[in-house]
Amino acid sequence: MNNAYHLNINATDGAARTGILRTPRGDIRTPAFMPVGTAATVKAMKPATVRQTGADIILGNTYHLMLRPTAERIHNLGGLHKFMDWDRPILTDSGGFQVMSLAQLRKITEEGVSFRSHIDGSKHLLTPERSMEIQKLLGADIIMAFDECTPYPATKAETDKSMRLSMRWAKRSYEAFENIDLPTAKSSAIFGIVQGGVYRDLREESLKSLTDIPFDGYAIGGLAVGEGQDVMFEVLDFTMPHMPTDKPRYLMGVGKPDDIVGAVARGIDMFDCVLPTRSGRNAQAFTRRGTVNLKNARHQDDPRPLDDQCACNACQRYSRAYLSHLIRSGEILGAMLLTEHNLQYYQDLMSGLRNAIEQQKLSNFINDFHKLREVGDIPPL
Amino acid sequence: MNNAYHLNINATDGAARTGILRTPRGDIRTPAFMPVGTAATVKAMKPATVRQTGADIILGNTYHLMLRPTAERIHNLGGLHKFMDWDRPILTDSGGFQVMSLAQLRKITEEGVSFRSHIDGSKHLLTPERSMEIQKLLGADIIMAFDECTPYPATKAETDKSMRLSMRWAKRSYEAFENIDLPTAKSSAIFGIVQGGVYRDLREESLKSLTDIPFDGYAIGGLAVGEGQDVMFEVLDFTMPHMPTDKPRYLMGVGKPDDIVGAVARGIDMFDCVLPTRSGRNAQAFTRRGTVNLKNARHQDDPRPLDDQCACNACQRYSRAYLSHLIRSGEILGAMLLTEHNLQYYQDLMSGLRNAIEQQKLSNFINDFHKLREVGDIPPL
Repeated sequence: MNNAYHLNINATDGAARTGILRTPRGDIRTPAFMPVGTAATVKAMKPATVRQTGADIILGNTYHLMLRPTAERIHNLGGLHKFMDWDRPILTDSGGFQVMSLAQLRKITEEGVSFRSHIDGSKHLLTPERSMEIQKLLGADIIMAFDECTPYPATKAETDKSMRLSMRWAKRSYEAFENIDLPTAKSSAIFGIVQGGVYRDLREESLKSLTDIPFDGYAIGGLAVGEGQDVMFEVLDFTMPHMPTDKPRYLMGVGKPDDIVGAVARGIDMFDCVLPTRSGRNAQAFTRRGTVNLKNARHQDDPRPLDDQCACNACQRYSRAYLSHLIRSGEILGAMLLTEHNLQYYQDLMSGLRNAIEQQKLSNFINDFHKLREVGDIPPL
Repeated sequence: MNNAYHLNINATDGAARTGILRTPRGDIRTPAFMPVGTAATVKAMKPATVRQTGADIILGNTYHLMLRPTAERIHNLGGLHKFMDWDRPILTDSGGFQVMSLAQLRKITEEGVSFRSHIDGSKHLLTPERSMEIQKLLGADIIMAFDECTPYPATKAETDKSMRLSMRWAKRSYEAFENIDLPTAKSSAIFGIVQGGVYRDLREESLKSLTDIPFDGYAIGGLAVGEGQDVMFEVLDFTMPHMPTDKPRYLMGVGKPDDIVGAVARGIDMFDCVLPTRSGRNAQAFTRRGTVNLKNARHQDDPRPLDDQCACNACQRYSRAYLSHLIRSGEILGAMLLTEHNLQYYQDLMSGLRNAIEQQKLSNFINDFHKLREVGDIPPL
């Protein structure tokens, strides 16, 4: 536990809430979206531009960083913040999810996960203790407990077994977090992760065993893995009422704009997702009128901006025709501009949600959000 | 000819000269380096960042733009400046060089060059008249006459024949330039291109027939094609004394930093080259101490900047270790930062040359330039 972290709730609207998560490296306005900076960079973005879009915090991936350039190297170079030139908060995941989706020859035991690197085949062992050490070496502000991401779909018995392992690892994570003393990690906080798949009693049991530990925040893991939005919202509906109200609540790996809107309405405070950045490198733009595929030939001669309500560089200075040209030509600037636009869209969405909650007008906001998306993109000229 | 273009020479030092080329879209400090913006973007750079490095003018490639997105499309969208958000001067090449190096099934006749696109195999014909039309459709500030880039090596007879064709095309280019009336090209100037390979009498003859035409500037073409620096300088040594002194002199496609230094000393005013941008995407950095390959393992733990005298973002905010990590991870930010650094290096070099000429200290500058490069990169820690 870290007493320097405080969640100040400024307003609520139904289950939704808005406020400020105070941290030693700066305030995080909640609900917050964290751009993903996997390998010590938010892909195709300078940190100053990430900040300009409105991001208060970014996420780093333990699995990628432990393999390359390694946590020890980053530590020796003064920590992840200095390394990547981002002086505001960073949350690192535990590596638990990505070791299951990316690593080779992985084997789970009570101790942890042994695996081979997808980059060079080298052998590694990731345990709760090692994950905490890595995250502290990186100098993360918010450290995530090490867990097993339950595969989806999974039977109740499989989910139960996996959740119990994660809960034992959560306890070991917390102990290791408290015991590892590194100067770069003086300001770290630690979040626990609720597992239990789509099963109500397992979620409740997981949450109960986690709240016995004084974590600084609680995440919901194991969602957005293919279960669909209905099931995800159902899990939130039966899980959120049991979540502590005085600690931040983080829905991991979510999500699409309408996932985020629905989850905020259900009381989530923090999100991360690769969608805006990855889509930006794949010609897909998020707009107030839904997603726009810039590979579509209709944009080639269109002098209008992508989204005339957006303040990003791509929308303020360029036409759809130009963005379309960059993408057709495989130009790096296309990835840069669309990533910037998508991150701006996500931050604008969060800011809109925060204002709506503040003014007790969340349901109006959500209605307008869905209505404009149903209208769809501007018609061709 | 365009009377709005004036070259004001402020100082000379030996054959070298420095001044301002005044154009309707802004002043160009000479000697000038023009970053290459092939497909309506300086690769991996926002235009504002290109400008921040000190670039007064950039270059666009007629061959690429005529194929994609097409000159007509750019014209309909308001011209190249608006399309790519660069409001300062743009020089476009004629397409003559790139049609020979990139296009398929090309065939040269007196009329021009017929070829198939390397992108989609479509058939095209590029003539002096069509090249002028394309460059005017793009809205280029400085338009280059259409020429044949003589292959290297070439016999004297081949070079002679090729040069004479280019001279006939130069005349047709000038006539077409004067006759094509497009509102987007009201502020255009046109440069002729001296050919003649490595042969003194052919260069002199080419220059003589070109100076009969009132071009706004004169370029030296057909160099930096494999002849080596000694031969290139030799050609400059016997060509430059015959070049008009009141018009800008542009050495096309050059070059490496020491090529530029030697050519400035011989009286060249303008340069363009893909080296800083292309190298930036290939882990190669230009520094005051020579080129640095960031793939080299020695940089992985090095907390020092690439070049401690450089004001660019990469050098001011990041370590060699971080740049090395980005490159090893194939991150777009690596290409962005190294491109920015390399362009900054080139602009700093030009600024250093201009100041040295202004102060009549060019030979000192050149000695220091070579001395520091001989010392080489900083030793490993």
